[in-house]
Amino acid sequence: MPVPEAIDALSSLLGDRLSLSKPDLEAHGQSETYFTLTPPDAVAYPNDTQEVSAIVKICAAHGCPVIGWGAGTSLEGHALAVRGGVCVDFSRMNKVLSVNPEDMDVVIQPGLTREELNQELRATGLFFPIDPGANASIGGMTATRASGTTAVRYGTMRDNILALEVVLADGRIIRTGTRARKSSAGYDLTGLFVGSEGTLGLITELTVRLHGQPEAISSAVCAFEDIGAAVETVIQTIQMGVPMARIEFVDTPTVAAVNAYSGTDLPEMPHLMVEFHGSDAGVAEQAERFGEILGENGGTGFRWSTKAEERTKLWDARHKAHWACLASRPGAIALVTDICVPISCLAQAVEETRADIEKASIPGPILGHVGDGNFHAILLVEPGNAAEMEEAKALSNRMVERALALGGTSTGEHGVGVGKLPYMEREHGEAWDVMGQIKRALDPDGIMNPGKMVRGN
Amino acid sequence: MPVPEAIDALSSLLGDRLSLSKPDLEAHGQSETYFTLTPPDAVAYPNDTQEVSAIVKICAAHGCPVIGWGAGTSLEGHALAVRGGVCVDFSRMNKVLSVNPEDMDVVIQPGLTREELNQELRATGLFFPIDPGANASIGGMTATRASGTTAVRYGTMRDNILALEVVLADGRIIRTGTRARKSSAGYDLTGLFVGSEGTLGLITELTVRLHGQPEAISSAVCAFEDIGAAVETVIQTIQMGVPMARIEFVDTPTVAAVNAYSGTDLPEMPHLMVEFHGSDAGVAEQAERFGEILGENGGTGFRWSTKAEERTKLWDARHKAHWACLASRPGAIALVTDICVPISCLAQAVEETRADIEKASIPGPILGHVGDGNFHAILLVEPGNAAEMEEAKALSNRMVERALALGGTSTGEHGVGVGKLPYMEREHGEAWDVMGQIKRALDPDGIMNPGKMVRGN
Ligand SMILES: Cc1cc2nc3c(=O)[nH]c(=O)nc-3n(C[C@H](O)[C@H](O)[C@H](O)COP(=O)(O)OP(=O)(O)OC[C@H]3O[C@@H](n4cnc5c(N)ncnc54)[C@H](O)[C@@H]3O)c2cc1C
Ligand SMILES: Cc1cc2nc3c(=O)[nH]c(=O)nc-3n(C[C@H](O)[C@H](O)[C@H](O)COP(=O)(O)OP(=O)(O)OC[C@H]3O[C@@H](n4cnc5c(N)ncnc54)[C@H](O)[C@@H]3O)c2cc1C
Repeated sequence: MPVPEAIDALSSLLGDRLSLSKPDLEAHGQSETYFTLTPPDAVAYPNDTQEVSAIVKICAAHGCPVIGWGAGTSLEGHALAVRGGVCVDFSRMNKVLSVNPEDMDVVIQPGLTREELNQELRATGLFFPIDPGANASIGGMTATRASGTTAVRYGTMRDNILALEVVLADGRIIRTGTRARKSSAGYDLTGLFVGSEGTLGLITELTVRLHGQPEAISSAVCAFEDIGAAVETVIQTIQMGVPMARIEFVDTPTVAAVNAYSGTDLPEMPHLMVEFHGSDAGVAEQAERFGEILGENGGTGFRWSTKAEERTKLWDARHKAHWACLASRPGAIALVTDICVPISCLAQAVEETRADIEKASIPGPILGHVGDGNFHAILLVEPGNAAEMEEAKALSNRMVERALALGGTSTGEHGVGVGKLPYMEREHGEAWDVMGQIKRALDPDGIMNPGKMVRGN
Repeated sequence: MPVPEAIDALSSLLGDRLSLSKPDLEAHGQSETYFTLTPPDAVAYPNDTQEVSAIVKICAAHGCPVIGWGAGTSLEGHALAVRGGVCVDFSRMNKVLSVNPEDMDVVIQPGLTREELNQELRATGLFFPIDPGANASIGGMTATRASGTTAVRYGTMRDNILALEVVLADGRIIRTGTRARKSSAGYDLTGLFVGSEGTLGLITELTVRLHGQPEAISSAVCAFEDIGAAVETVIQTIQMGVPMARIEFVDTPTVAAVNAYSGTDLPEMPHLMVEFHGSDAGVAEQAERFGEILGENGGTGFRWSTKAEERTKLWDARHKAHWACLASRPGAIALVTDICVPISCLAQAVEETRADIEKASIPGPILGHVGDGNFHAILLVEPGNAAEMEEAKALSNRMVERALALGGTSTGEHGVGVGKLPYMEREHGEAWDVMGQIKRALDPDGIMNPGKMVRGN
C-alpha cells in the first residue's frame, strides 16, 4: 500500500530525514528471526515530539500506516510493514531529558537504549535494571512490555514506567501518569500503552523508575543432573522468598553452545546462573540459603563470587547465548519461542518441551528466566527448508498449547507481533474482542502498526 | 431515574435477593465522608457470575444504571447512585475459590474482605499485604486501585492482581490475564479494569498475588521536632534503599487524637511509625540503618520491637487514626483529602498544607503513607455548616493544586469517585478525553456507574 501523497508531504516536512533508500527500507523490514523481509515505503527520522505528531497527522490524512521502530531487536516480527507505510525510526530521539536522583526517576526520549541509559546513570548510584540481553531502545521495550533476566526482582517494563507522552493516531499528544509513585486518578493509560506494540500510538517520552545500585552483588553458576532438579531448585528458592536478582536456566544444548561460543568450560549439564543484590550481609545470607536449597537438589559446582570480572564474564556468556545457539548450527535462522507458566508447572512445561524437541529433527536449546516461570526454545532451522520450518512451527505451537493448558500465557515477554497473533483468540477468548474495541476507539482508521494485535485489523 | 421494568425483571430473577427496603437503599446510598445520601432504586445480591451477567443484561435492556458495591468504605462517594439504578452488592460472593501456595496466588470472589482473606491464608505461610486500614472488599480495593500502609514495600492493587473475570456493560463475561507471573500477550486489560471504579464492568472473580509471611517483623515509632525532620528521614530512608514494609507519618494533631482515642501516650510531636519485614538478620540490619538516618535527623524515642502485641497495638492505633480524628471533634464529618507527590517534594507539600490548615478555622490532622509520597488531611467539618464545608473544599482544592504543580497526582489511592472528578481534566488534559473514548467503547450507553470518571458521562 504505497501512499505517494503522504510520502510527498513527509518529504517536505523532513527533508533528508525521510529516507526512501532501498538499504534503509530493507534494514527496517527485517527482523531478528525467521520472518520474511517486509519493508516499509519510507523511513522517517523525527527530531522531536512535534515532528512525530506532524508525521502522524500527515499519515492520518492519507490513510497511510505508521510503524514505530526502536532498535529492531524484537523477535516476533513486531515492526514488519505488513501493509506498507511509514516506519518512524526513533534513533534521533535518544536524549536523557532529566535525571531526578532524589525521586529515583529519569525522563528520556524513546530511542535511548538501555545500555546508553545506564551509561548516563553511572555516576548517580542508580540504575535501570530491566535487561532483555539485547541493547534494545527503552521505547521499544515499553512497547513490547519487555522484561528479561532481572524481572524476577525488579519487575517488567509494566512495573517500571511511571508516565508516558504518546502521539495518538490523530496526531494528538497526550501525557499519561505523573511523577508520583502511585495514583488512583482514573484509567491506567500508562499501563494500556505499555505492551501495545505501537498499535495505539507512538511513545515519544518516558518517565522511568530507577533503582539504587546494590551495595553488593554476587553471582554464581551451578550444575544439575537433570532439568527437574534445576527447576525444582528454582521453585523452592522463589517459594522461600529468597530475593533473587537473577535466576536463569540453561539446558545442556545451550551450555554446549555457550562453551563453544564464549570459551567457557561449564560441564555439559543443565545449569542455573544466579545473581544476588543487597547489602554485604544480605547477599551472603541469600547465597547461603540458595546454597542449601540447591544442595538438597543435588546441585554441584556452586561457588559464589563478588568479583566484577567473573560476574561480567558470566552474564556476557548468558547474554550471548542467543548468538551462541545460532552459531551452533552454522547458517541457521531461529524461531525463538517464549512461554510463561505458573511456577508450579514449570518443571512439567520444560521437561515436556525438551522431550518434544528431542523427537524432532531440528536442534532447539532451551533457556529462560525461570524465576518468573518463563522460558524460550531457540529452534534452529536451515534457511529455505520448508519441512524444518514446519517442524519448528509445530513445536512452537505445542509449546503454546502446553502453556495455555497449564494456566500460562503464549508470550511471557517477547510480545505478539506477527508470530503470536494466531494465539490471541485462544488465550483471551472474548477479551480479545475487547482489545479490538479499544483499538478501534483510539485508532478508528487502523493506521497504527496495522495487521497486528487485534482481529481483522 | 427509577426504572420499573428493570426492577420487575430483576425481581423475577432474584426473588428476595432484590431489595427495595428503605434502610437497605439508604445503607447503599451513603458514604464514609461528607457526601449527601444518594440511594439507588434497588439493591441486588447476586450469588454468582452468571447472575451478575443476567442482572447487567436486564439493566442494559432498560438503560438502567448498575453500580457495584463492595464494603462501602470508599472515601470519594464512588458508589453514590447519582442517576439512580441498581446497586449490585457483592457480599454474598465472598468465597475463596482456590489457594495455590506453590504459585503464591489465590482465586477469590470480589466480596471477600482483606481480613477474611488473610484469615483464610493463615495456615499457608502466605499473606495478602495490601492494607488500606478499613476492612474493604478485595473487589472494591481493585476497583479503586487501593493501597495503604504497605504499598511502599508490596505495591498497590495494580501490582497484586494477576487476572480478573469481568462482566461487561452488555453482560458478556471476559477473563483478563492468566496465572502466569508476567505476560506480553496483548493490551493489559487487567490493569485497565484495576482502578476503573466500576465504570467499565463489574469484577466477579480475581486472581490475587500473595507474598510469603516474613520470617521476622519488627516495628517502631519515633518522634521528631518538626515535620521537615520527619519527612527528611523518610526521603533519605527511601533513597538509601532500606526496604521498609511500612513508613507512616502522623502529625501532632493526629498524635493528640490517637492518644485520646486509643490510650497511647506518644509525645505530642510529629511521628513516624515504621515496620521492617525480612529474615532475623535482615530486619536487624534495616532497623539499624533506619536508626542511623533518624538519628541524623534528630529523631527520638526510637526503639524497635519484634513483640507481636506491641506491634498490633501500634498498628491498631494507626488504623483507628481516622476514627480518632473524627472523635477529636465530636459530631464532625470528614472531608478526607489524598494527594501524592514525587518524594523530593514531600516536605514542601506537607509543610505548606499544614501551614494552610493552621490558617483555617477548622481542624485538619495530617497523616500519610509517606514512603510513596502520599498523604491525607482529615478536614473536620460541623454538619450543616456551609461556611466550614466551603473552607474544607478550598483547602482540599489547594492541596490538589499544590500536588499537580509539584508533578504529583490529585489522588494517590482513594480514587476519583465524585470528589475528585472536577480535577480529572486539569490532571490529565487531553488524556482525559482518551479515558472517555475507552469508556464509550466499552459502555456506549453509559450504564456502568454513570456520572463518574469521564466527561459528560
Ligand atoms: C538476542 C536477543 C535476546 C532477547 N532477549 C529478550 C529478553 O530476555 N526479554 C525480552 O523481553 N525481550 C528479549 N528480546 C527481544 C527484544 O529485545 C525486545 O522485544 C525489545 O523490547 C525490543 O525493543 P526494540 O527497541 O528493539 O524495539 P523494536 O524491535 O524496534 O520494536 C518493537 C515494537 O515496538 C514498537 N515500537 C518501537 N518503538 C516505539 C515507540 N517509541 N512507540 C511506539 N511503539 C514503538 C514497534 O513498532 C514494534 O512493534 C531479545 C532479542 C534479542 C535479539
Ligand atoms: C478509615 C478508612 C481508612 C482508609 N484508608 C485507606 C488507605 O489507606 N488506602 C486506600 O487506598 N484506601 C483507604 N480507604 C478507602 C477505602 O477503604 C478504599 O477505597 C477501598 O478500596 C474501598 O473498598 P470497598 O470494598 O469498601 O469498595 P466500595 O466503597 O464498596 O466501592 C468502591 C468503588 O468500587 C466499585 N466496586 C466495588 N466492588 C466492585 C466490583 N466487584 N466490581 C466493580 N466495581 C466495584 C464501586 O462501585 C465503587 O465505585 C480508607 C477508608 C476508610 C473508611
